[in-house]
This record gives sequence, structure tokens and C-alpha cells, in this order.
Amino acid sequence: MTTQVSPLAPTDVPKMPEIEGIRLATAAAGIKYAGRTDVLLTLLDPGTAVAGVLTRSKCPSAPVDWCRAKLKGGKARVLVVNSGNANAFTGKTGRAAVQFTAKLAAKAAGCKEAEIFLSSTGVIGEPLKVQAFEGVMDSLVANAKGDYWLAAAKAIMTTDTFPKVATATAKLGKTTVTINGIAKGAGMIAPDMATMLAYVFTDAPLSAAALQGLLKKTVDDTFNAVTIDGDTSTSDTLLAFATGAAATRGAPKITRASDPRLKAFARAFEKVLANLSEQIARDGEGARKLVEIVVEGAASKASARRIARSIANSPLVKTAIAGEDANWGRVVMAVGKAGEPADRDKLSIWFGGIRVAHKGMRDPSYDEAKVSAEMKKPEIFLKVALGMGKGRDRILTCDLTKEYVAINGDYRS
Amino acid sequence: MTTQVSPLAPTDVPKMPEIEGIRLATAAAGIKYAGRTDVLLTLLDPGTAVAGVLTRSKCPSAPVDWCRAKLKGGKARVLVVNSGNANAFTGKTGRAAVQFTAKLAAKAAGCKEAEIFLSSTGVIGEPLKVQAFEGVMDSLVANAKGDYWLAAAKAIMTTDTFPKVATATAKLGKTTVTINGIAKGAGMIAPDMATMLAYVFTDAPLSAAALQGLLKKTVDDTFNAVTIDGDTSTSDTLLAFATGAAATRGAPKITRASDPRLKAFARAFEKVLANLSEQIARDGEGARKLVEIVVEGAASKASARRIARSIANSPLVKTAIAGEDANWGRVVMAVGKAGEPADRDKLSIWFGGIRVAHKGMRDPSYDEAKVSAEMKKPEIFLKVALGMGKGRDRILTCDLTKEYVAINGDYRS
Repeated sequence: MTTQVSPLAPTDVPKMPEIEGIRLATAAAGIKYAGRTDVLLTLLDPGTAVAGVLTRSKCPSAPVDWCRAKLKGGKARVLVVNSGNANAFTGKTGRAAVQFTAKLAAKAAGCKEAEIFLSSTGVIGEPLKVQAFEGVMDSLVANAKGDYWLAAAKAIMTTDTFPKVATATAKLGKTTVTINGIAKGAGMIAPDMATMLAYVFTDAPLSAAALQGLLKKTVDDTFNAVTIDGDTSTSDTLLAFATGAAATRGAPKITRASDPRLKAFARAFEKVLANLSEQIARDGEGARKLVEIVVEGAASKASARRIARSIANSPLVKTAIAGEDANWGRVVMAVGKAGEPADRDKLSIWFGGIRVAHKGMRDPSYDEAKVSAEMKKPEIFLKVALGMGKGRDRILTCDLTKEYVAINGDYRS
Repeated sequence: MTTQVSPLAPTDVPKMPEIEGIRLATAAAGIKYAGRTDVLLTLLDPGTAVAGVLTRSKCPSAPVDWCRAKLKGGKARVLVVNSGNANAFTGKTGRAAVQFTAKLAAKAAGCKEAEIFLSSTGVIGEPLKVQAFEGVMDSLVANAKGDYWLAAAKAIMTTDTFPKVATATAKLGKTTVTINGIAKGAGMIAPDMATMLAYVFTDAPLSAAALQGLLKKTVDDTFNAVTIDGDTSTSDTLLAFATGAAATRGAPKITRASDPRLKAFARAFEKVLANLSEQIARDGEGARKLVEIVVEGAASKASARRIARSIANSPLVKTAIAGEDANWGRVVMAVGKAGEPADRDKLSIWFGGIRVAHKGMRDPSYDEAKVSAEMKKPEIFLKVALGMGKGRDRILTCDLTKEYVAINGDYRS
């Protein structure tokens, strides 16, 4: 496993403010890793609303099943996340582990089991040693504090090389509210529902329905627009929590996502989600290049998305970028295999703002040296214009390097 | 570019017999490579029937467009294949190159342009230096001979590490007929229509319609059941030629693929196609393991195929196999992301005949040492039973290694 921080890691980590109604704690329960924290507990004040989007995998993990059921209640008091073991494909044992953990947390926090939310990330198929939680749960609850966000983000890392945090403020009515987010990513990342684990918290007084509506609207162009390897996890989870504490400072209570007063908040909310999802692309396993792919002129937005995904998930495109090779022929291949309306002779392709192919052939002004210089940069912008319609989409990915193979070739061992 | 022969290469290369009505020649035209042959010319006697399946890419190469149009005529006299340049995404220049080559070949062989079949493989997007053909075409025609199959297979290689040939005989009526095949593969291989370049030749007197029917029936479980990296080429071409020369030795003329007299021939035909397509998997770029994936108990054959493809194209499954890790958790992930009917708690998974997961959890008798020994073998058999229905499918692939990344990270340079 790599220990070096991704060269694409953000250079400055924001100071994460406290959010009224939220306290955090971490512990080293020894689930898999030695010498590091692997459990995060988040205490949420009574009245906290919750919303979420979960993996579309047909084989979801036990905690995903649990969250899906409990989201219906719309209320949350505790979030428990462990790293090192995904508690996925663990059959009855997995369900029992989830129930055991929820019971433990509910007892420690003094709330209902239906208000406990759980996530697990790490190895699939190995039973989760749930006894590990027993020794730490009470002290997690006792020690939880408001100023602990970076430590929280660290506790949920697996092959991530840096903790992922983001924060923003916005006016809701005349009151300033805060949005904090943490996430973990790395491998098994594909844009199909929420991507890996991400949690967003706010003191804004949003109902569960308003929060769910906002989440659904925002996730498509943020977390669902990131792919590392096209492999969708069985554990993908994005949860949003609103304590509502800002109501006491005059913030209006919002019950619908379409409420016009939510405009500034929605913008800040999207900013946090976009920031976290970009960090996931920046920490793709073995990534050395962040790749932004824009497809325009497609028959529809959905068509543009499918073509962008086909490019972003193509091993040949990704290895070419790793080799700093502006191999737009492979981009043509990826467009062609997507099966979407396309006309070879109308296709144009840009690398880093330089048009390399135009109307079905190499651009007449193609300059290998100029393009090569562009490919050496850590951030690669790739644009494809199809000339078929007005559909446009954008997706983030990273390159495919030998390090990806090395990391995933001996993850279990 | 790697120069070492794949460790999965077949250990014995068959002696390729001559086929009446077929002569071959190769040349070093200097299209891209130095010091090796890069053009294959095959002369076919008058009356040769042709059939073919071509890439479904929406951005096919110019030679693919040409072949698709000429297949309608059903007659072939010359096949010209070059390596080093795919003549794909080359716009008008590409179409002109194809026309120029066909004209040249028709003149040299004394036939119609509509009877010329062309393929190009190699770099996409670079203009094909078609003048190179001018110097070699006449001597190719003059020097063509019957006993030249291995050299023919060598001339069409790109990143292939060994030439791919296969042969079989069958009784047609009371007459023995021969089927020879050559192919090239390596990267950009996915099961969507014919995979890369493959040519099959016989002296059996089959009409173009009968040959086409047979080809369509056979390709699904041979070439379309192989994937290296999920990347479908813009040049995928599989052509079959029947000279009909065996008619003079008493073989019956066959006009329909459903003719019952074709049974033994169809079996031998499938054997040759299966053999060539397996060799393509054995020579996947950077491959160190040949992986056979069987999915059974799916809702339908199509569903089984989609799940098998999802597993075979998953970078996480492929890197795990490269790392000799029986990481069946990733197989569960790949089943789950396929979006096909599946029930986590009915799923069983085998590696090399050892059941590692059963009914939604690790097999109770799981023995890491036994499974690890299995994973060290060069050929890995992976079976998934879904318990949903009777759909079954089989697909061949290879592992994803650092060598794949290295080969594709600097292919152009």
C-alpha cells in the first residue's frame, strides 16, 4: 500500500469551523489497521434531519441496507463509520453486526436504534469484528467534541492518501449557516449514485424532505460526475445531516427543496459537494493526473454523460494520459464504443485547450511540441465536440498508472 | 514496447497446410516499423466467396467502411492487411488511401476493385503513408505462395508477442476440406462484434450467404466472448473466405448455413475461431494470467453475458488476479454493478474449482492456503452461480498488470 500523499492533493486544507449540534470523536479499535484510528462517531443533537443517496449496486453492503431502511424515518442522532472492513457480502453475520453496532450506539447515546446511521469501508467479504466497537463506544460518546473535523476525516480513510474536508457558509434568510463535509474515496469509484463515503453537515433548519430534494439535485453533477476505475462500490453512501440549530439564531425553517430562500444555501451546498468529489478524483489510487472531460454537442445530456463516462473509464485513454501522450485516437475509440449518436467526420477533440483533431482528422495546425507540453501538466483538460446536438456533460477522473495496479494487486495481503 | 513473448503463448504452433486457391505474400513497406514485415497480401482464386463481421463502433476506420460496402457483393480476390497504422479517423485522406490501395491491388491482381478487401491496424489518427504500397504491390502478387501462413500471421502483428494461427480439417460430404485462420489482437479488445483482425480461409464450396450465416452463429461464443480491456477497436474485422476449390474433389456446394451437411464443418470452423480468440486472450497486453469466467444461474444468457463482461472488465478484479489474490469481494462488486438481476444472498463464487463464497458469505470451509495455490497458476477459472435462473455464459480475459500500463503509456512514442 502506498504511503506517499497524492501529488494532486489540495495544497491548503481549510480550517473547519464547528457546527452547532454536532460533536465528533474517533477511536483506534483495531478493526484491521494498527496504529491508526478506524472508527468515527458523530453525535447529532435531537431534531437533526437526515437525507441520503446510496449505491445502486445489486449487492449492497449490510450497512447500506440499514441506512436505506432508516432514511425513511428522516431523523438521525448518531453516525458511526468504520474503516478497514466494509461489512459487505458477509451474509447473516453482516446483518447481525449492523444490528449489534446500532444497539450499542443507541444505548451509549441514549436514543432509538432507528436514529443510528452506519457505514463501513474496506475489505469486502470478511466478517467485521464487531466486538471491537464494544470497548470504544462509551468513550466515543463521552469524548465527542465540536472541533474535530480533520481527525474525523482521517479515521474513515482506507487507501486514501489525504483526508478530505470542505466547508462553506451561506445566508439563509438573514442568518449565516455553515456546511461542513468529509469524504473518503480512492478506488472502486464510479459515477452511479453517491460515490464511496461522504457526509455533509449543516446547522440550517432543513426538513428531511428538503434535504433529500437538494441532495438528489446536487449529486448528479458532483459525486456522480467522478470516476476512478468504473467500479461501483457495494458501499457507496452519501448522507446529509441538518441539525436545525441555526433556527434559534433566526434562520427560517425550510420544508421544500424548491423554496426560493434556499438559493444561496443550495449554491454553497453544491460547492462543498463539488469540492469533496474533486478531492476524490485527486486521490484516485495511483493517480498522477487529474483529468476533466467535457463532452459537448451530443444528442442529449444523457448521451453526453455516457460518452464522457466511456472516455473516462477507458483503460487505453487513461494509460495514454499516464504516459503524457495526447493519443486522441483512443478518445475517438472511446467515443465510438459508447454506442451513442456520433459522426466520425464531425468530431473535434481538444487537449488542454489545443484542438488536436477537427472534422474527422488531425487538426491541420497540430503541433506535437505544444500538445506535449500541455500533457506534462498535472491537470489535463480534455474536450470533445460531437456536432450532433446541444447535450453537454462534464466528468472528472484520473490517469491509470502502474501504481494503481500495484495498490490493487496486493490490497488484501 | 515489450519484446518478450507472453508466458501464456501456446507451446506448440501447428503446421499450417496449404489451401487450394489461396496464396500469400508479405513485405516490409516501412509503414511504421523498421526491420519487419508490415503488409500481408492474400490472393484468392476466382469464385471465392466472402463473409464478415465488423466493429460496431460509431467511429469505424476507413477500411472497415470499405469492407462493409464490398461484403454486399460476396466475392473476394485479394485481401490486403497492413500493420503499424490503422487508417482510422483520418477523414478524407483515409478514404482516399483506401481507394488508392484498392485500385493498386486490383490492377496488380487483375480483378475488380469491389473484390479487394482491406484492413489496417496500428496507430489511430495518423495519415497512412499509402505510397509505401506502391513499391511492393506488384512483387507481392508475383511472389505469393501457398505455404506462407506463419509469415502472414507475423506481418499483421502490432503489440502482439506471438503470431496467431489455427487449422482444422472436416468432412464435407465425403471430401476432406481444410480451414486455416490467422489473427492479431493484444489491446483494445472487447467483445462487441469481431475482435480485432482475424481471417479464416477454406477450400470448402460455401456460398457467401452460407458463410455469413455460419460466421454470425459462431462469432458470439468465440471472438465476442473475449475481452482484454473493454475497449472496442474502430477496426475490428473478422473475414471468412471460401475458395470452393474442394468442389472439384467432390465436396457438395453449400448455399445455406442451416444445411445439415455442414455439421462437421461448422464444428471445425468453431474450433478454429475459438482457438484464435483464445490466443488473443493469451496475448492480452501485459497478460500474465488467462482468465476463464463462467456465469451460471443468471436470469438469461444475455444477463449472464453482461455480468461476465462486468467481471472481466473490472480493473479491480483484473488487478487482484494479477496480484494472485482470490479477492472474491471484488467479484461481488462487479456482479452488483452490472445492474442485472442478482441476489447477494444466493451468490456463490469459485476460484479454480474451489468454492470461496456461498449464499452471501465466505464459504465455511474456506482455506486460504488452498485458494492461494490455485491463484498462482497461469490459468485461472472463475465461476459465479447466481441462483436466479438458467442463463449461462462464458468469457475469456486476462489480468491487468503494470506491463499493460507500460505498454499503453508509451505506445505512440
